[in-house]
This record gives sequence, C-alpha cells and structure tokens, in this order.
Amino acid sequence: MKLYSKSTLEAFEKRQRARFVNSLSGFKSANMIGTADPLGQTNLAIVSSVIHLGSNPALLGMVMRPHETSRHTLENIHAMQCYTINHVSREHYKAAHQTSARYSRTQSEFDACGFTPEYVADFAAPAVAESRLQIGMHLSEVLPIKKNGTMLVIGEVQWVQVSEPAVQSDGYIDIEQLGTVAITGLDGYHTTDRLARLSYAKPDQELDEVT
Amino acid sequence: MKLYSKSTLEAFEKRQRARFVNSLSGFKSANMIGTADPLGQTNLAIVSSVIHLGSNPALLGMVMRPHETSRHTLENIHAMQCYTINHVSREHYKAAHQTSARYSRTQSEFDACGFTPEYVADFAAPAVAESRLQIGMHLSEVLPIKKNGTMLVIGEVQWVQVSEPAVQSDGYIDIEQLGTVAITGLDGYHTTDRLARLSYAKPDQELDEVT
Repeated sequence: MKLYSKSTLEAFEKRQRARFVNSLSGFKSANMIGTADPLGQTNLAIVSSVIHLGSNPALLGMVMRPHETSRHTLENIHAMQCYTINHVSREHYKAAHQTSARYSRTQSEFDACGFTPEYVADFAAPAVAESRLQIGMHLSEVLPIKKNGTMLVIGEVQWVQVSEPAVQSDGYIDIEQLGTVAITGLDGYHTTDRLARLSYAKPDQELDEVT
Repeated sequence: MKLYSKSTLEAFEKRQRARFVNSLSGFKSANMIGTADPLGQTNLAIVSSVIHLGSNPALLGMVMRPHETSRHTLENIHAMQCYTINHVSREHYKAAHQTSARYSRTQSEFDACGFTPEYVADFAAPAVAESRLQIGMHLSEVLPIKKNGTMLVIGEVQWVQVSEPAVQSDGYIDIEQLGTVAITGLDGYHTTDRLARLSYAKPDQELDEVT
C-alpha cells in the first residue's frame, strides 16, 4: 500500500491528477444522454455520472460541467426540459465513447457515431434505438455545486423502455444480461460477471443468495 | 422491448419499484464509509452512491438518506467533519453487504462484520484495513435535494492509500486489478473484465486502445 497525501495529488500533472482522481470513486455507470434543441437538432453525449437519487418519485441525477463537451446537452435540457438516458452496452461502447469528441453544434453525434434516434411515445427527446435500456426524463432541478462550478442535474423518470427478459419478477433488472458496461476512470470499459444477489441484511442473521 | 409508463411504475408494489428504479442508473460503485463519533465509537456502512465530482480540488459526493441505516454515518460525519471511503473487493463483498443491517449505535459494524479499523496518518476517521483503496475525506458541503429529502454529501480528498501495483504511470488506477466490485440495483454484486481503455475522442479520428 502506498499513501498519497493531498499535496502529492496537487503536485500531479493536470491530466495525471484527473486520471487518478477519476479512478477513486469505483465503477461508474455508462450512459448516453439524448437531447434535441427547439428546432429538432439532436445531440448525444456519453456520461459516467448518472446516479440513483430515489425511487418514489423515481429520481436520477447526473453531474455536468458547463464548459465541457456536454455543454450542448445542458443547453438542450434547459431549453426543452427533457432528455433520455440510454445504457451503453458492449456492442457499441466504442461508438459511445466517440460521442465525447467536440463535434460542432450542427453535427449530431447520432449521425457522426452511428446511432439511430428513436422517439418513444411522442417524447420530445430522442432515445438511442441501439440501447436496450432507455429512460425518458423530465428536468426537475439543477443544483449548483459551488466548490467547483459543476451542477447536479436532477430529473424524474417519465418512462422506461427495456428488453423484457431482463426484468425479473421482483422488479430487479438484470443489466448484466443487457450487456451494459461499467466505466473506470476517464476511459476504461468493462463487462461484468455476477457474483450474487444478496438478501436484505439483518443483524445476527446469515445472508442468503437471491436466485 | 417493453415500455413502462410513469403510472405503471407508480402502481408497482413499493419494494418492486425500489428494485426496478435502483437498477436504472447502471453499474454503481461499491464502497464502505468509515466514521467515528467524538468518543471514538466506530461505524461502517456500505454505500453504492459515491460519485466523482471533480479533480481539482478532488471532490467526491455520495447520496445519504437521513432515516435509513446510514443515519449513524451521517451523524458522525457532521460531528467529526471527516470520513473514509473504502473500496469493496470480491474477497469481502458479503461482509460489506452485512454492514447494511440495522445494528445498534453501540455496536460497531467493524466488529460485527469482521473488518479491522486502521488509522492512517492520525486521521480521525477509521479506514478499512482489508480494503485495497482507502480515501480520507473532509466534509465540504451538504446539498439538500428538496424533491425527496435526501442529501448529497460532498467531501474533499485528503489522502489516498492504495495497493501500489494498480497505479499506472499516467495516473489511472486499475481498480479491476484491485478486485473492486460493481453493484447493480439494491443487492447485485459483480466482478469485471476489461474491454479496453480508449484514447481521447476527436472528431474524424479513429479511437485507439490505451495500453
């Protein structure tokens, strides 16, 4: 084990520090955010910061940096108040990573990276037809994080479209079966192997595996 | 593909909805939060909501629900202004899951679940000796999420202790090599297999694999 102090981290070269610190939180979710502007121009951006906030109402958050490549996404969300979240799977993780390139505003990442916009139930934001778990979101709240100028974008789930065999009878969705990938750091992609589902933990009681 | 509307989700039985919605965000990080109260009584709690917020300063967030089993953790963080984040690996994922049981305030989850408190560099919060990536955190800010009464607890990295061979020369930490697990839903645990690290994406340029 090696100890890195705060001052050691601060002395890292900028990109080295970004890679190191981005590795600390653990595995991250891999999603693409689908949006459109008021004229219907579509945008697609990979994010690794989508997080569960609550089940009732069903809330998801994501961290956005206003000056990065996600700026068109954020502008579209503000303008249209809606967006989609689409799982990234092993078949298209490279194309999904490519959506992080700095395309011009008039070039859709759907076209540039080979994805197909799909409009679900008249929802104004496009989903990704190639994704096996798609979520329609309405913007709920944007929380500024003062310490570094980022924002937590909070939305409420409006609909979910998912490959049916992955949904288990107790509500759990087997996203490993969907081929959803996990992200490490800024650029690492991983498939997964299930260890187990574990029963609800109680003091002085052995855990069971949920099957 | 099957479409679930908002009203369908709202009509789910409560635990079914919790399992379904908790599956939506994708793979989650698996960490244990180590804290102590002012008298030195230790506490340990697994969380799946640790998220990267920024690299400079190095900020991590996590979502906490005041009335759940993490309440002792949150009280200790408020009292001591510090905590540790410790990666969960495959060797101890069941014991880590067991920390989510509702132990009494006077019973430490370190003892109850078989983990060893380790004090790094006189830091007041205990790390988990069994964890191969441990992070010392100072509380920075608590952002209330009005929509559902949860909180985003934001902290700044003070130190990192990590198994040295996992740290690559460019700063990336190979947490797969550490055996860190990923979580799905409320109770699914997974190991991972690397697909690739991908180069920084640019328009009209093929992606390379980083080796």
